[in-house]
Amino acid sequence: MAYFDAASAAPLHPVARQALQASLDEGWADPARLYREGRRARLLLDAAREAAAEAVGCRPDELVFTSSGTRAVHTGIEGALAGRRRVGRHLIVSAVEHSSVLHSADVHEAAGGSVTQIPVDRAGRVSPSVYAEALRPDTALACLQSANHEVGTEQPVAAVAEACRAAGVPLLVDAAQSLGWARVEGDWSLLTASAHKWGGPSGVGLLVVRKGTRFSPQGPPDERESGRAAGFENIPAVVAAAASLRAVRAEAAVEAGRLRELTDRIRGRVPELVPDVEVVGDAIHRLPGIVTFSCLYVDGETLLHELDRAGFSVSSGSSCTSSTLTPSHVLKAMGVLSEGNVRVSLPPGTAEEDVDRFLSVLPGGVSAVREKLGAPTAPAKTSAAADTLVVDSLGKRCPIPVIELAKVIGDVPVGGTVRVLSDDEAARLDIPAWCEMRGQEYVGEEPMEKGTAYVVRRLA
Amino acid sequence: MAYFDAASAAPLHPVARQALQASLDEGWADPARLYREGRRARLLLDAAREAAAEAVGCRPDELVFTSSGTRAVHTGIEGALAGRRRVGRHLIVSAVEHSSVLHSADVHEAAGGSVTQIPVDRAGRVSPSVYAEALRPDTALACLQSANHEVGTEQPVAAVAEACRAAGVPLLVDAAQSLGWARVEGDWSLLTASAHKWGGPSGVGLLVVRKGTRFSPQGPPDERESGRAAGFENIPAVVAAAASLRAVRAEAAVEAGRLRELTDRIRGRVPELVPDVEVVGDAIHRLPGIVTFSCLYVDGETLLHELDRAGFSVSSGSSCTSSTLTPSHVLKAMGVLSEGNVRVSLPPGTAEEDVDRFLSVLPGGVSAVREKLGAPTAPAKTSAAADTLVVDSLGKRCPIPVIELAKVIGDVPVGGTVRVLSDDEAARLDIPAWCEMRGQEYVGEEPMEKGTAYVVRRLA
Repeated sequence: MAYFDAASAAPLHPVARQALQASLDEGWADPARLYREGRRARLLLDAAREAAAEAVGCRPDELVFTSSGTRAVHTGIEGALAGRRRVGRHLIVSAVEHSSVLHSADVHEAAGGSVTQIPVDRAGRVSPSVYAEALRPDTALACLQSANHEVGTEQPVAAVAEACRAAGVPLLVDAAQSLGWARVEGDWSLLTASAHKWGGPSGVGLLVVRKGTRFSPQGPPDERESGRAAGFENIPAVVAAAASLRAVRAEAAVEAGRLRELTDRIRGRVPELVPDVEVVGDAIHRLPGIVTFSCLYVDGETLLHELDRAGFSVSSGSSCTSSTLTPSHVLKAMGVLSEGNVRVSLPPGTAEEDVDRFLSVLPGGVSAVREKLGAPTAPAKTSAAADTLVVDSLGKRCPIPVIELAKVIGDVPVGGTVRVLSDDEAARLDIPAWCEMRGQEYVGEEPMEKGTAYVVRRLA
Repeated sequence: MAYFDAASAAPLHPVARQALQASLDEGWADPARLYREGRRARLLLDAAREAAAEAVGCRPDELVFTSSGTRAVHTGIEGALAGRRRVGRHLIVSAVEHSSVLHSADVHEAAGGSVTQIPVDRAGRVSPSVYAEALRPDTALACLQSANHEVGTEQPVAAVAEACRAAGVPLLVDAAQSLGWARVEGDWSLLTASAHKWGGPSGVGLLVVRKGTRFSPQGPPDERESGRAAGFENIPAVVAAAASLRAVRAEAAVEAGRLRELTDRIRGRVPELVPDVEVVGDAIHRLPGIVTFSCLYVDGETLLHELDRAGFSVSSGSSCTSSTLTPSHVLKAMGVLSEGNVRVSLPPGTAEEDVDRFLSVLPGGVSAVREKLGAPTAPAKTSAAADTLVVDSLGKRCPIPVIELAKVIGDVPVGGTVRVLSDDEAARLDIPAWCEMRGQEYVGEEPMEKGTAYVVRRLA
C-alpha cells in the first residue's frame, strides 16, 4: 500500500494531529468574545497567525485564514481585482494555473473583464519576458503559481514579480504546492496556500495581502479575519495548520533531497522500463516529490485501476479520468501527450522500497492495459499501398484513435497521409504528441460535420 | 467556571471529538479520487450526508456541507436569488435575522434589488399575517430564522412557510440555533445551519436546497458538493458534525426539558433579585437554553467583566460590547432596553448549581456596576421647580444618558418635560425603553446639529 498522490492531499502530519487534538479543548469558543474561553481562543488564533506569517515571510496582519485554498484564491483574485477596478479590468494568468484561478478568471471575463493567458513551454514553464510583455496600463492583477500541481514544474516567480512590480501591477502567487517546502521568493503582493497540501488538516487556506496592496473584499461583509474570510474561525484546524507548516519546514531540506532522488529515479527508469512513454515537466526546475509521465496507447483510468489493485494510489490528467472527458488543461497547454497519463506525487516520508516496487509493477500494468486495447506492440509493417488512408475513430475514446493511427501508418508510403476521424477531445492533443514522439509529421486538423479529421504525414 | 454562551459556540460534544479523531485517519484524502484512500473518504462523506439529511428531514442529495453557517447563508441567499432572477428581485427578511442574512440583504440591495424587513413584536416574533402581506409577485426569496440567536424567541416558521408556498415563493430558514433541538417543521425550501452551535466542530455548515427549488450558485464554479460549496471537503469535521448532531438529538427531549426549567428559573428570579431589570424575548415560544435580560443603569461591558471575574461567560447585545458602538439590531427591532444587556445561553449538560450560583452572583455584580456609574438607587425626589429641563449627555456613552435622565426626572413637575441631549446611538433605544419601564411618556426625538434631543414627559 503506497499513497503517491500527495499533490491532491497529504496525509495528516503527526504534529497536525497533536496540535488539533490539543486545541479542541481550548480553541472552540468565539475569539471575538471577551470572557476567558474567548480570550484563550484568541491567543491560539494569534499564535497560529504569527507562526504561519513567519513561515510565509510576511507580517501577521497581512495573513488571514480561509476555509480552503480554493476559497483563498477566489477571495484573493476577486478582492484584488475590485481594489484596482479604477486602474482597469485586465487580468493575467498563466495557462497552467489551478482550476480555482482559471475559474475566477472565467467569472471575471463573463462580467466584462479581459483576461490574458500566458502560454507555457513544453516543460510547463512561463517565460518571464513573455509574461512581462503582457502587462498593460489597465492590468489590475497578475497571477502565477509557484509550481505546477500536475507536473511539478516551478515557475520563475521572482522574475515575474520584478516585472510586475516595475509595472505597478500586484502579483498573486498560488503557492499551494510549494509552501510546505519553502517561502516563495520575490516581491509578490498576494499569496494563497492550502494546509492539506502540506500535511495540515482540511478546511484551512491562507490568504496573504501585503501592506500597500489595494484590496476590496466582495460579498456580504463579515468582521472576522479582517473582513477577508467570512464565518466562524476554525481555530483547532488553524492551529494544526500552522504547527504542521512549521514542522514540515523543519524537515524540508533533508526530505526534499531524498524525494528528489526518488523522483529522479522514476524519471530515469520509467522510459527504460516501459516503451513509448513521455516523461513531462521540467527536469531541473521542479518540486521534489512530483513526477508525471504519459504512456502511449494506454487508457489512463484503466491504468489507475491496475495500479490501485497493485497497491499504488496515483492520479492522472488523462481525459478518461475527468468528469468532462477532456484532458488536463495543463497537459494541453504544454502540448504533451495526455493518454495514459500518470502523476506520481510522493508524500514526505515515502519509503524507497515503495518507489522501487512501483517501478517493478508499472511495466506489467501498462502492458496489460495495452494488450486489452489491442495496442501495436511491434513497429507497423511497411507494406504500402494507397498513398492516403482514412481511419474512422468516431465515437471511440482515447487512446483508441491513436492506437488505430499507429496500426495503419505503415500502410501508407513515406510521404503519404493518414486522416484520423475523431470526436474525442483528447485526440487534438494526443495525435500531434504521437507524431512528435514517433517522428511523423502532424499536418493539421480539418473540421467535419461530426468530429474532426487529424491529418498525419508519414516521414519514416 | 461556567460557560453560558452556547448560542455563540457550544463546547465540542464528546461524540464529535471521537468521530473527528477516528476519521482523521480515513477522511483526509480527496473523495473525488478512485483509489482506495479516495473511496474511503467518499464513503465517510456519503455516510455523514445521509446522517445529516436524516436529522434535517431531507434527501441526502438536497444537502451540502459548507465551511460555516455564515457561508451557507451567503451561498443560499445568493443562489436562490440568482435562480429566481427572472421572477423578480424582491427579498424578504425579518428584522431580527442573523447578521449573515442581513448583510446578504444589504449586498442585494446595493446591487439594485429590493428588500422588505418584517418587523417583530416586543417579544421578537414576526406575525405570519404581516409576513404574508409582504409577499409580492416579484418576490424571489423570503428568509426567516427558526429561532432568534439573541433572545431565543421561536418564529412561526410553519405558518410563514405555508404562506410562502401558496405564493410560490421559496422560504429559506436559518436554523442555526434550533437544529440541534429538532427538525424545522413546515414546508420550507432552503435551510441553513452551523455545526459548532450544536456541539459539532468549527468549520462545518449545512445548506439544504429542496428539489424543485430554483438555485443558481454564484462565483467561480467548483465541482465539489454539487457546485454549492467550493473547496476541498473537510471530511473529518463533516463526520464529526453529523455524528454529534445525531447524538445531541438523541438527548434533546430530556435536555430541553431540563434547560427550560433552568432558564425559567432565571426568567423568574432575576427580576426579583435585581431591581430595574427587563427580561426580553417570548416567554412561551422560545429555545430551551436561552434567556436574555437588560439591566437599567448598567454598562454591559463592565457587567460582562464582573461576571467573567465571578466565573461566568455570557454575552451581551449592549452597544458598548459591539465594535460599532450600536446596540444589537435584534433588541432595537424589539424596541426593548439594550443597556446592561445579558444573554445567558446554557449548553446541554449545564449544572443546576451553576445556574443557582449565577443567580447569587448577579445582584452584586449589577449593584457594583451601578455604584461605579452613580446610578440612582432611590426613586428620584419630587422637588419640582422648572417645568422643563435639559440634560446634556453629549459625548457620554450608554448607560450614562439614561442614568442622568433618571436622576432629574423628579426635578420637573408631573406634565413637565426633560430633554436629554445625546450622540450615543443606544440612547435612541434605551430612553424610550426606560419610559416604558418607568411609566413615563416618551414624546419623541428632535435632531440637533450634534446628536439628538430625546424628549420625555413626566407622568408620575
